[in-house]
Amino acid sequence: MIDLRSDTVTTPDEAMRTASTEAAVGDDVYGEDPTVNELEARAAELVGMEAALYVPTGTMGNQIAIREHTERGQELIADRESHVVKWELGGIAQHANVQVRMVDGERGVPTPEQVDAGYVAEDLHRPGTGLVCLENTHNARGGLAIDPKRVAATAAAAHDHDVPVHLDGARVFNAATALEVDVTDITEHVDSVMFCLSKGLGAPVGSMLAGSEDFIEGARRTRKLFGGGMRQVGVIAAPGLEALENRTDLVTDHENARELAHGLADVDGLAVDTPETNIVVIDVAGTGLDVDTVLERLRGEGVLATPFGPTTIRCCTHRDVSRDDITAALEGVRRALE
Amino acid sequence: MIDLRSDTVTTPDEAMRTASTEAAVGDDVYGEDPTVNELEARAAELVGMEAALYVPTGTMGNQIAIREHTERGQELIADRESHVVKWELGGIAQHANVQVRMVDGERGVPTPEQVDAGYVAEDLHRPGTGLVCLENTHNARGGLAIDPKRVAATAAAAHDHDVPVHLDGARVFNAATALEVDVTDITEHVDSVMFCLSKGLGAPVGSMLAGSEDFIEGARRTRKLFGGGMRQVGVIAAPGLEALENRTDLVTDHENARELAHGLADVDGLAVDTPETNIVVIDVAGTGLDVDTVLERLRGEGVLATPFGPTTIRCCTHRDVSRDDITAALEGVRRALE
Amino acid sequence: MIDLRSDTVTTPDEAMRTASTEAAVGDDVYGEDPTVNELEARAAELVGMEAALYVPTGTMGNQIAIREHTERGQELIADRESHVVKWELGGIAQHANVQVRMVDGERGVPTPEQVDAGYVAEDLHRPGTGLVCLENTHNARGGLAIDPKRVAATAAAAHDHDVPVHLDGARVFNAATALEVDVTDITEHVDSVMFCLSKGLGAPVGSMLAGSEDFIEGARRTRKLFGGGMRQVGVIAAPGLEALENRTDLVTDHENARELAHGLADVDGLAVDTPETNIVVIDVAGTGLDVDTVLERLRGEGVLATPFGPTTIRCCTHRDVSRDDITAALEGVRRALE
Amino acid sequence: MIDLRSDTVTTPDEAMRTASTEAAVGDDVYGEDPTVNELEARAAELVGMEAALYVPTGTMGNQIAIREHTERGQELIADRESHVVKWELGGIAQHANVQVRMVDGERGVPTPEQVDAGYVAEDLHRPGTGLVCLENTHNARGGLAIDPKRVAATAAAAHDHDVPVHLDGARVFNAATALEVDVTDITEHVDSVMFCLSKGLGAPVGSMLAGSEDFIEGARRTRKLFGGGMRQVGVIAAPGLEALENRTDLVTDHENARELAHGLADVDGLAVDTPETNIVVIDVAGTGLDVDTVLERLRGEGVLATPFGPTTIRCCTHRDVSRDDITAALEGVRRALE
Repeated sequence: MIDLRSDTVTTPDEAMRTASTEAAVGDDVYGEDPTVNELEARAAELVGMEAALYVPTGTMGNQIAIREHTERGQELIADRESHVVKWELGGIAQHANVQVRMVDGERGVPTPEQVDAGYVAEDLHRPGTGLVCLENTHNARGGLAIDPKRVAATAAAAHDHDVPVHLDGARVFNAATALEVDVTDITEHVDSVMFCLSKGLGAPVGSMLAGSEDFIEGARRTRKLFGGGMRQVGVIAAPGLEALENRTDLVTDHENARELAHGLADVDGLAVDTPETNIVVIDVAGTGLDVDTVLERLRGEGVLATPFGPTTIRCCTHRDVSRDDITAALEGVRRALE
Repeated sequence: MIDLRSDTVTTPDEAMRTASTEAAVGDDVYGEDPTVNELEARAAELVGMEAALYVPTGTMGNQIAIREHTERGQELIADRESHVVKWELGGIAQHANVQVRMVDGERGVPTPEQVDAGYVAEDLHRPGTGLVCLENTHNARGGLAIDPKRVAATAAAAHDHDVPVHLDGARVFNAATALEVDVTDITEHVDSVMFCLSKGLGAPVGSMLAGSEDFIEGARRTRKLFGGGMRQVGVIAAPGLEALENRTDLVTDHENARELAHGLADVDGLAVDTPETNIVVIDVAGTGLDVDTVLERLRGEGVLATPFGPTTIRCCTHRDVSRDDITAALEGVRRALE
Repeated sequence: MIDLRSDTVTTPDEAMRTASTEAAVGDDVYGEDPTVNELEARAAELVGMEAALYVPTGTMGNQIAIREHTERGQELIADRESHVVKWELGGIAQHANVQVRMVDGERGVPTPEQVDAGYVAEDLHRPGTGLVCLENTHNARGGLAIDPKRVAATAAAAHDHDVPVHLDGARVFNAATALEVDVTDITEHVDSVMFCLSKGLGAPVGSMLAGSEDFIEGARRTRKLFGGGMRQVGVIAAPGLEALENRTDLVTDHENARELAHGLADVDGLAVDTPETNIVVIDVAGTGLDVDTVLERLRGEGVLATPFGPTTIRCCTHRDVSRDDITAALEGVRRALE
Repeated sequence: MIDLRSDTVTTPDEAMRTASTEAAVGDDVYGEDPTVNELEARAAELVGMEAALYVPTGTMGNQIAIREHTERGQELIADRESHVVKWELGGIAQHANVQVRMVDGERGVPTPEQVDAGYVAEDLHRPGTGLVCLENTHNARGGLAIDPKRVAATAAAAHDHDVPVHLDGARVFNAATALEVDVTDITEHVDSVMFCLSKGLGAPVGSMLAGSEDFIEGARRTRKLFGGGMRQVGVIAAPGLEALENRTDLVTDHENARELAHGLADVDGLAVDTPETNIVVIDVAGTGLDVDTVLERLRGEGVLATPFGPTTIRCCTHRDVSRDDITAALEGVRRALE
């Protein structure tokens, strides 16, 4: 099977396994796990923030950030298709009691004009805007790599209203790689960022939430409320640190995605845009088949992809998929759809 | 002062005062207030529902309805500019823990296509859609009277997904009057409706929430949770019943609104669309003045209006404003802006 | 029927009806109802607070107060049998997301020692104590009138920990009357108080929440969130003001309660403590009948009472029950149980 | 340093490290991690339930269970000193919107009589009881091992009211060991149980929540809402499975605790009860020193303990503390306090 469903399916390599085996550990609830402490310091440094916090999932990182930045009853502005809005089980309303002012962002990013228009000052009838959320790369929009200038412009609009900005950077290293910038060129404009050690970086478990020291102190407490205060977390922090320090070659993943898209574009009935990072969205409407049928046929030919929209499926390249796998996958798709 | 800020400023007339004085009362928490019982039965009948419940405000009626129809974590679909989204202090997230999928409706109504596109089936990552909210007349869109056919089409789209529909009908009698239909022509398509006895009908306090018997039974309990279970409520239910039975002549309010709009359109710097009901939205951008300055100058000339948008103000006609008042108001506006 | 179920069943008298008819009114959401403004000023003065707010029910007043005083996740300390804990549909957890540290208070009041023992300082694992709630008179404990000294001592213990105190004073005028003190002798020790205009005072609808100006400003906004921001509220504020200014003779209600208790104590199978105010709790275990049967038999003899505990029923005296009614009620009870 | 603060400080042994290194992994959000699947099956079997779910912490397991069993607004009955009430940041009110009816349980267990007395049937004013929570061993009461008969009796009382029972069994294997029963003798009486792989069993991270298949299916979704849906979780599930299959010799931990208590009882100023499991609670009031001073002095002599109450500290024995360590710790304590 060639598994293109998600970059979350990556399995830890030998170096990560060894790192886990050899990790010094302690009780992180007491702040005594040296490995996670090192990881948190290193993560903060990499994204240019004062402090960082290890969390078991990106969803928890995002939801903690949203709750820390806002007060109940406020609004946040986010793209309609962002992960925090779409795939986190309504956590924004459930955990933070916050209303989302959804906008149709440009390339998935609320524009400065949309922030200005959507901004609400608190009054007797209205709760006020407490946060703007960005996502980079933008998953549901097809792995778009958002330029630092665009991030800067939207963040500036938010800051002009004294509203902080959180970046869901689950795949922010893919964005930085694709744009050939340093990750801090993106993160310097926002007040907090979450990024995943799993997904493209390949660690088995875990994400990082970074921001100011005050923010992270509050986040640490809220992590406990969410049930994310783990113990000898070094055993998973170590592979995470290994994944972070010796970051996988995301350039290859992106080349593989383009190769895949290029090949798929030649298949009758498929429409594919050129991917910017490691996510390839394929419109199967032209095949006359529905999404489930297409996915089933692909599976029959040894290729796993994921449903994405009414007529679209998603393929995701990652470190466990080689160029040869791409070639084989293309052959599988052709067999499945001919 | 000619008060055009809102139709909520109407004061009770002699008949309503007398009705209150003579009202038979009892403890409504025990279900023993004969006047509110009569009002609830009559309200249900008027909108063609099985049962109705008296609530102190329209906001409480809407928020109870939303909470009754949904489960925490679900989504509801509503127009971005609807009252429940904009002016109820984020209650949807706070009381019901529900996320709003905001759409830019046509004439303030989510279209059937938008309902289909916005509908989410519950799965492991997504909370599912639990409700569609409509508003008629649509306040923030300028008092638009929404045609029953449009209500029917959107409601049908929702019902096709087994999703119920709530109508914020704070001014639904204005809509029915403007469209020259019976109010049930509008309400027959929805599962619950809230309408106000205050506002255009002129009662001092109170709104009605109507729906199925089961729905109202649950709503009665939730009303208590919200602190809306009052006692000898007949003293305010009686003027409400009087206001409902001898409904004020909303036709005149609408004519006055058109007369006002017509006159304002001739004032330099003002842009006004022809109103459909009793709400007149005036764009003051052409005056070169900001909204606050315009409102202050109007006040100086004896005319009260309300801020509405970045460059707009709202005037609202109602039973306490006569045709002569409109004439006088127009003169005041001209003096204020010349 | 002699209705002893609750003092909430009192109906407005002629003076209150007239007050309503003649009330000057305006839109209270704009702060322009002169009658409610007068009522709020007068209520604040009577309980010695900076400001007050009219709310449709005591439950809403209590729940707004709790939400204003606390942050989500905190704890409050209250007697296990207090109204806010028992009969407000879990609103403390639902509206304020606050946990109740329940204690078995002395005469229904958490003692200073219980406050000290129950107090929790905020740390990584614990949310911290945000409020102490008192109730006077204490309904579920049998209408106990709590001495100002006891209130003072418990409030001092709370204040020593920088924790504010809210008083559910639904019947605080009964307490002051029974103790022959001014109501401010009780309220001067607490940070906020809610008292009812309905119940013993006899107004048809409404309660007052009083506290500091800042507190009431926040409460006004939260009232809107709860759906309690009504319009021409003068029509119910006027009878409330009349009820407050010309307070009914609560002494008579208390004498009637003692007379009733004294008479009931002679009935075979009934056990009754001497009431301190207008609430008489009757243990019917000795009759060999269950509570529902007793209530049904009483109803058959023209006497209405309310179930209260596994073997107890409650009778409540009030302004609509005369001494002759008490005599008749006693005869009814004797016939019912012989 | 001899670390007696908690059994959460245990570090993984060689076998666990190896298990992690060799673990087959997959994406658990897709249900494809074979190791966690094996662990979940094995955990369910061990406690005699239909299904089980891996969660990152015991707090998350408890909070998910509470939310799954209840509806918002309901009450749960629990001992005042239970972990879910005391040390989970008010999560019951925050996540589940549920009110805790706190009781002073016998040996930390609500008695059948307390369940009967505390049970509330849902009505118009009251939310109804939705759950009874037990804890075994009971941490805050000093690691008490609760006899299956007591669990059975309380659970039967709850079930008589159709109320389910959740067991916080963070240390339920300590209880079974101390009582010389099978763990199913305890868990067979309850509807769900959470137990920790970390703590006494020694795994680095993770807890198990077990119950019916329906319950666990819902819990899996709620785990995602809490941000607990991790990816290649086999790397931590493997040491968890190793810890579970080759359970550490808890008998030794308990003997060490008794040895420690016995020795401490001879130290002037200390009062110690005989421990039932691995938790030793020491009252230091007799030393004339406050808790912080005692802990600081102990630390100076190489012994770490944890503050527990106003005059008490807690020592916890575990697999990383040998009999020699106990002897050394006792010497340290004596030096510290002489």
